[in-house]
Amino acid sequence: MSQINNNKFEEVTLSTQPIFEGKIISLQVDTVRLPNGKTATREIVKHPGAVAVLALVDDKMLVVEQYRKPLERNQIEIPAGKLDAGEDPLEAAKRELEEETGYRCDTMKLVCSFYTSPGFADEIIHLYVADQLTKGDAHLDEDEFLDVESITLEQAQQYMREQRISDAKTITAVYAWQVYKLTGSF
Amino acid sequence: MSQINNNKFEEVTLSTQPIFEGKIISLQVDTVRLPNGKTATREIVKHPGAVAVLALVDDKMLVVEQYRKPLERNQIEIPAGKLDAGEDPLEAAKRELEEETGYRCDTMKLVCSFYTSPGFADEIIHLYVADQLTKGDAHLDEDEFLDVESITLEQAQQYMREQRISDAKTITAVYAWQVYKLTGSF
Repeated sequence: MSQINNNKFEEVTLSTQPIFEGKIISLQVDTVRLPNGKTATREIVKHPGAVAVLALVDDKMLVVEQYRKPLERNQIEIPAGKLDAGEDPLEAAKRELEEETGYRCDTMKLVCSFYTSPGFADEIIHLYVADQLTKGDAHLDEDEFLDVESITLEQAQQYMREQRISDAKTITAVYAWQVYKLTGSF
Repeated sequence: MSQINNNKFEEVTLSTQPIFEGKIISLQVDTVRLPNGKTATREIVKHPGAVAVLALVDDKMLVVEQYRKPLERNQIEIPAGKLDAGEDPLEAAKRELEEETGYRCDTMKLVCSFYTSPGFADEIIHLYVADQLTKGDAHLDEDEFLDVESITLEQAQQYMREQRISDAKTITAVYAWQVYKLTGSF
């Protein structure tokens, strides 16, 4: 595994069947040739990618509470949103933070980028940290409904235990924040 | 936000259009009524849920390298797999660990459970930690191809910088492991 070989175990695309083209995602089913010569199908969700922000104000992180239809309940998450077509991730992070919370930040840094579900989706989330914030006014999309709050690390950990925080990007951000507080780096 | 109200901002389902029923995922489009009375659509991927294991042997974590078709390249990830119908997550975690790596563990503990993409999918991953391992033989599915390796925390962090580790569950596991090493708890 010490050699980088991105083609090892490669699955060669034999055909692609488009299934659905939506506003947020699209779906296709690829037929592939496996390393053993057999064929298999792969269900693949295409997503434009997203950004999320660990935004720190006075040693608290900004979170938004919103309804998540796939879960049929509210979730508390860090500010986030999907990339517009051709949009730079850093610019998208600044835009989403300001839209959802009203806070501006000109000097965000990338913590990490991660694929949410590499088994069936190509969605990538770029997670930024922002700690030099200026307060302005939120300006939500017309059909966007959420509450903004700021919470301590201990509150975030309590929300994780209560499953009110239970999404990958927010849990990653909480762990990264804890590591930063313990070590001084992400 | 201190009051738990899971119905706040609720989006009431007006109709559901099934789009696709696959082997791994299904897709539907719901038409919903928003809190402001307007209607909108929600693209929703249904997934059976999955498990992942932070498996520690002699202060190294077990990882598997496999090809991820949605990304068109290899990824290094912790052992993981989707739940069989009706399967208990803990039993699934033990099963997947043994299938992919050959290691058995009778005393796993849940670290956290998280939704990977709550904006468009209901997939949940249950992340376990296992550190009392017994070595046996891997027994992969017929069409499963992967390498197993064990790496230190420093190697894992290097792989994150190189984006060879770049999925939500593995990054969460690496941060959780680092927090555990620093504080003694997850």
